[in-house]
Amino acid sequence: MVGHSFMGAVHSQAWRSVSRFFDLPRAPRMVALGGRDAQRTAQAAERMGWESVETDWRALLRRDDVDLVDICTPGDTHAEIAVAALEAGKHVLCEKPLANTVAEAERMVSAAEAAERRGVFSMVAFNYRRVPALALARRMVAEGRIGDVRHVRAMYLQDWLSDAESPMSWRLRKEQAGSGALGDIGAHIVDAAQFVTGQHVTGVSALTETFVRKRPGEQGPEDVTVDDCAVFTARFSSGAVGSFEATRYALGRKNAMRLEVNGSRGSIAFDFESMNELWFYDGDEDPDTAGFRRVVVTEPTHPYLGAWWPPGHLLGYEHTFTHELADLVTAIGEGRPPEPSFADGLRVQRVLRAVEDSAAADSVATRI
Amino acid sequence: MVGHSFMGAVHSQAWRSVSRFFDLPRAPRMVALGGRDAQRTAQAAERMGWESVETDWRALLRRDDVDLVDICTPGDTHAEIAVAALEAGKHVLCEKPLANTVAEAERMVSAAEAAERRGVFSMVAFNYRRVPALALARRMVAEGRIGDVRHVRAMYLQDWLSDAESPMSWRLRKEQAGSGALGDIGAHIVDAAQFVTGQHVTGVSALTETFVRKRPGEQGPEDVTVDDCAVFTARFSSGAVGSFEATRYALGRKNAMRLEVNGSRGSIAFDFESMNELWFYDGDEDPDTAGFRRVVVTEPTHPYLGAWWPPGHLLGYEHTFTHELADLVTAIGEGRPPEPSFADGLRVQRVLRAVEDSAAADSVATRI
Amino acid sequence: MVGHSFMGAVHSQAWRSVSRFFDLPRAPRMVALGGRDAQRTAQAAERMGWESVETDWRALLRRDDVDLVDICTPGDTHAEIAVAALEAGKHVLCEKPLANTVAEAERMVSAAEAAERRGVFSMVAFNYRRVPALALARRMVAEGRIGDVRHVRAMYLQDWLSDAESPMSWRLRKEQAGSGALGDIGAHIVDAAQFVTGQHVTGVSALTETFVRKRPGEQGPEDVTVDDCAVFTARFSSGAVGSFEATRYALGRKNAMRLEVNGSRGSIAFDFESMNELWFYDGDEDPDTAGFRRVVVTEPTHPYLGAWWPPGHLLGYEHTFTHELADLVTAIGEGRPPEPSFADGLRVQRVLRAVEDSAAADSVATRI
Amino acid sequence: MVGHSFMGAVHSQAWRSVSRFFDLPRAPRMVALGGRDAQRTAQAAERMGWESVETDWRALLRRDDVDLVDICTPGDTHAEIAVAALEAGKHVLCEKPLANTVAEAERMVSAAEAAERRGVFSMVAFNYRRVPALALARRMVAEGRIGDVRHVRAMYLQDWLSDAESPMSWRLRKEQAGSGALGDIGAHIVDAAQFVTGQHVTGVSALTETFVRKRPGEQGPEDVTVDDCAVFTARFSSGAVGSFEATRYALGRKNAMRLEVNGSRGSIAFDFESMNELWFYDGDEDPDTAGFRRVVVTEPTHPYLGAWWPPGHLLGYEHTFTHELADLVTAIGEGRPPEPSFADGLRVQRVLRAVEDSAAADSVATRI
Repeated sequence: MVGHSFMGAVHSQAWRSVSRFFDLPRAPRMVALGGRDAQRTAQAAERMGWESVETDWRALLRRDDVDLVDICTPGDTHAEIAVAALEAGKHVLCEKPLANTVAEAERMVSAAEAAERRGVFSMVAFNYRRVPALALARRMVAEGRIGDVRHVRAMYLQDWLSDAESPMSWRLRKEQAGSGALGDIGAHIVDAAQFVTGQHVTGVSALTETFVRKRPGEQGPEDVTVDDCAVFTARFSSGAVGSFEATRYALGRKNAMRLEVNGSRGSIAFDFESMNELWFYDGDEDPDTAGFRRVVVTEPTHPYLGAWWPPGHLLGYEHTFTHELADLVTAIGEGRPPEPSFADGLRVQRVLRAVEDSAAADSVATRI
Repeated sequence: MVGHSFMGAVHSQAWRSVSRFFDLPRAPRMVALGGRDAQRTAQAAERMGWESVETDWRALLRRDDVDLVDICTPGDTHAEIAVAALEAGKHVLCEKPLANTVAEAERMVSAAEAAERRGVFSMVAFNYRRVPALALARRMVAEGRIGDVRHVRAMYLQDWLSDAESPMSWRLRKEQAGSGALGDIGAHIVDAAQFVTGQHVTGVSALTETFVRKRPGEQGPEDVTVDDCAVFTARFSSGAVGSFEATRYALGRKNAMRLEVNGSRGSIAFDFESMNELWFYDGDEDPDTAGFRRVVVTEPTHPYLGAWWPPGHLLGYEHTFTHELADLVTAIGEGRPPEPSFADGLRVQRVLRAVEDSAAADSVATRI
Repeated sequence: MVGHSFMGAVHSQAWRSVSRFFDLPRAPRMVALGGRDAQRTAQAAERMGWESVETDWRALLRRDDVDLVDICTPGDTHAEIAVAALEAGKHVLCEKPLANTVAEAERMVSAAEAAERRGVFSMVAFNYRRVPALALARRMVAEGRIGDVRHVRAMYLQDWLSDAESPMSWRLRKEQAGSGALGDIGAHIVDAAQFVTGQHVTGVSALTETFVRKRPGEQGPEDVTVDDCAVFTARFSSGAVGSFEATRYALGRKNAMRLEVNGSRGSIAFDFESMNELWFYDGDEDPDTAGFRRVVVTEPTHPYLGAWWPPGHLLGYEHTFTHELADLVTAIGEGRPPEPSFADGLRVQRVLRAVEDSAAADSVATRI
Repeated sequence: MVGHSFMGAVHSQAWRSVSRFFDLPRAPRMVALGGRDAQRTAQAAERMGWESVETDWRALLRRDDVDLVDICTPGDTHAEIAVAALEAGKHVLCEKPLANTVAEAERMVSAAEAAERRGVFSMVAFNYRRVPALALARRMVAEGRIGDVRHVRAMYLQDWLSDAESPMSWRLRKEQAGSGALGDIGAHIVDAAQFVTGQHVTGVSALTETFVRKRPGEQGPEDVTVDDCAVFTARFSSGAVGSFEATRYALGRKNAMRLEVNGSRGSIAFDFESMNELWFYDGDEDPDTAGFRRVVVTEPTHPYLGAWWPPGHLLGYEHTFTHELADLVTAIGEGRPPEPSFADGLRVQRVLRAVEDSAAADSVATRI
């Protein structure tokens, strides 16, 4: 694994846990952790359970005992590491967004496709696909339980930038983060909407805004060069109509990744702040007793749940990563490409670029 | 009153009730009901408590015992009746949307302004301003409780057209209804968003869709000539960013008129399906105990509530009309213009037109 | 009608409205209002729409134009007025609790039975039976939708006595009020539980408490002589187990009259603070998609709803009284006894007495 | 650790994780797993990460590399193992309920007190004390945020026995399980209520019921010899009034461990099905904006949360065990007794016995 801050910590917990709960073709070993600062990386490796340390990620690629590289670094480094790893014959798991630009993402997809022909696989870490409630939603949509999709309503609301005095960070600089709320959290809802509906976003009309344009940096006020929010309407491949919003200024909403889909036979609704619940409206019900029902997604028949606790005993955020690794390791073991692929990541990236293009061009509808 | 279907029935209940609960300068008399069909109008008058009947609305304007005309007819008749009534010296309450076109609405505003100079007043019936929870929201925003407004999220979700086999009606013909979901329910959320924030929508970028393009009419399939849904992003006069959606295809949502406003100090959220509740997040709270709180808006200090029942005893849909009439009759009695004025109605109308223009021009941002 | 404070105001609104929305055998006339103070009664009559005034309730009984007496006075006067009215050949609607003692209630039932043989009818005003959601719950239980009832969980939580400094009132004196939370709000949940389940409470084990034993009266501190809360377990005729709680000290709960019933095939749950909703769990559903569903009880097929507005347009507290009167007037017009009868009221009264007896005897199980 | 079914699996995940997230005096080693069946225990040890296996729990006590014994076996074995372990100088963590009888629990407390004098510590595993929301509730009550406690409303509702055809199991036999819903889940709410309020239950009046008296066993129908539900009222040391219910027949409620406490200044409410939320009503708030607020308990200042993810990223059921171990290991490292002690476990046991005694004696109030 390369990188050992927030994402590194979550991935490590998932790597430690996955074979304890899921039957895998092969139990993963946590061979080596990559990081630039030798001392801090060593401390992290000790804490997180990695057997050894490398201060240059290239060294990881040269090791025979490394079969897979898990990339948990900021987006501007993804392309270089991922392409090199794939070329070195290592499977790759790459954090989202796949890259900071479409061009980088395209290069990664080429490398992934070439590698796949050699039996080397890759996956982009849209972990929300592994929230059991969203995996259940996908299954229900695929089974036709809500009929033809007409409306998609997706939002990702956070509030940690609400305070105009909170300090500058790398996430607010375009050169490192690529974009602001759009790439950070907007990417999640674009992928989730496409995943759950089984449709692609084909066009968007967008508006972005930066509410606080300067923030306190280490050497005085610094310019914020990314969006604070992105709101956009969208068309889907099937003709459905979408409404998206990503913001880090929705005071009181801590991690409200919400998705509602209305179809011709039913509807589903989800909010990550209540991540163990899926709301379902069955349009085939007698109107007398029809209503959105709160499905507590903890039954043994629900996706991933057979591995865990009895009904009503909730899972948390980190479990989505454990599920992701279970799927990844299983797919590799079975010699088939895991999902979501780098191509899926590129598809999201193209939507993000279209959002930026549209926002820069007076919101005019922009095709993907 | 002219018109005696759904809106007429609600207004009648409000006219019958208003002086029973509010101290008015003068208790209203329900003098006459206008309708085209003599027999049906007479039956309605009997049922609804009107003293007499007129089959030509012009006759109402000639009566000395009529001081105010309440217009509950479809939108294509509003301008003619309202202008004539104002010119005849009658106060006017007009159902929303004010008119089917901006041109009509402008004519109505001119008439209203001229009439006002003669002490004759007019009001457009955006009844949702009189939902106590939304009136409280307005008061809180005006008092600065949520600080500077950054995000407005407004949607009006219904589902009564979900079934593609449900029959054609006048609401689906452009010449009578003006537009579809946009004018019918979109108008409400545009007005509510402007009312609660105290800001104007200054620009929109929109997309509309008609999901079911033919429906069974009395003589076979008929073309639906209005929108089934309208989704749009918006800018507000203060720089806030808005997201709007109006649809009659959100299966399971019966009357979900929702408004969320995020400011720099707090947030408020509302859903008409739980119309006696306002959710408030106070950003000044200690994070340890901060959270969206469910304010049951039934306290005697809440807007309009002093007139009704003890805390926790809910009000319903029809009460918003009773409150509207209380405000109208009081304003007229005190010789000051009631709100929302025809000019407020025109402002909404201009937003609706900009939505249609933007939707017709590839969603390009369109100024109001 | 006798009495014109809170209950009088609600009943008056219902009397004014009922024939506007329901097809009745005969539209009621609001002939006369009874009250002790001539001036205040006259003002109330004017405000509430009564045609005349009587300062002695006995005078009402002598009037030929009075067919029905609606008793809205405190509980200690019910027996005398109701018995006299029935003997005078007037139909009677009596507010709950039926009486302050079982002995009085028994006398009233005798009078009611005698009157019924002469075609003179009576009803006790447990208005919560006419909340559409609870009427729907009753219908569903009767249809077997939840199977055999095993658990009943009923609570009525208010908070208006939480403040130990709030003043003394007649509701806190045993001689006038009979009991405290028990008779005031506990009576409602006992009736509602029996109504919805179709079962009788056959035994209770109870505990009551008075948290604040002295409150400021007009001449200094006064003793509170009623219970502040009553909690009890119960057995039902079918073997179901019940848990009841009535309190006016549940800070933050304004009018939380809650009922949950768990059966062998399903469950229903209700909270009066969201009175337009019924939650239903269908145990026959596939566990994958089973969940408590929020039925918005505003469909035309729901009890009483055909008379009102389109789906999603809520009703309020006062509508329960309008429904009550519709049922009452219809039953009388059709010559059949309305429900709930005085005998139903007596049944509740006996439960309340058993609660008091049990609480006084170390909570020992006490049969009804 | 002794035992490796459900509880063993959860404890193992907590033992593996605790030092990854919490700074402990010493990182725990998972030395040995005890179980009767050699092969199955070895498989479990492999799966769960234990270094070695013992088929006799006494062997664990003889090992020098074992400092602490974690008892995850059924209740009828707790006393013997725990007392022996303490006498052998091993710290003990014992699953709840502490024992199947008060006599056993008393013996365990004696052993624990004797051991503590030698620096050997013990803890009973009421893991719900380590739900962050309940730990926050405890902190708020202790700080006086809700004032004097008046009402406690505690229920633990499950539904996995609703189906009368589901098979017999050891949990339904008195000799092994001690009691039914009462000891299994009732124990949790008794402890949680005492923990959060800081009060003791001093008396109860109870009713228990067995709805399904025979269930299919391996050799034909077998008698169920424990309660299916227990409902009881209670008095607390401070004068507060309690209402408790434990059942496994509340169809649709999967794991609804609920606690509501109303005080003179505020209220708190919790439901384990939404375990990351605490609802708080602040009675000191202006009534205009007062309401139950949903605190998402994921802030770094919330109990245990500093060790985990950013705000809004939820924890699950298993984290309560990780927290429990963090507290246990820290207390032992610091040479002070961890909580809840065996004495706390005994206190719960005495309440459970009083419930059974009261239920057997016509619900008469029974002192603890």
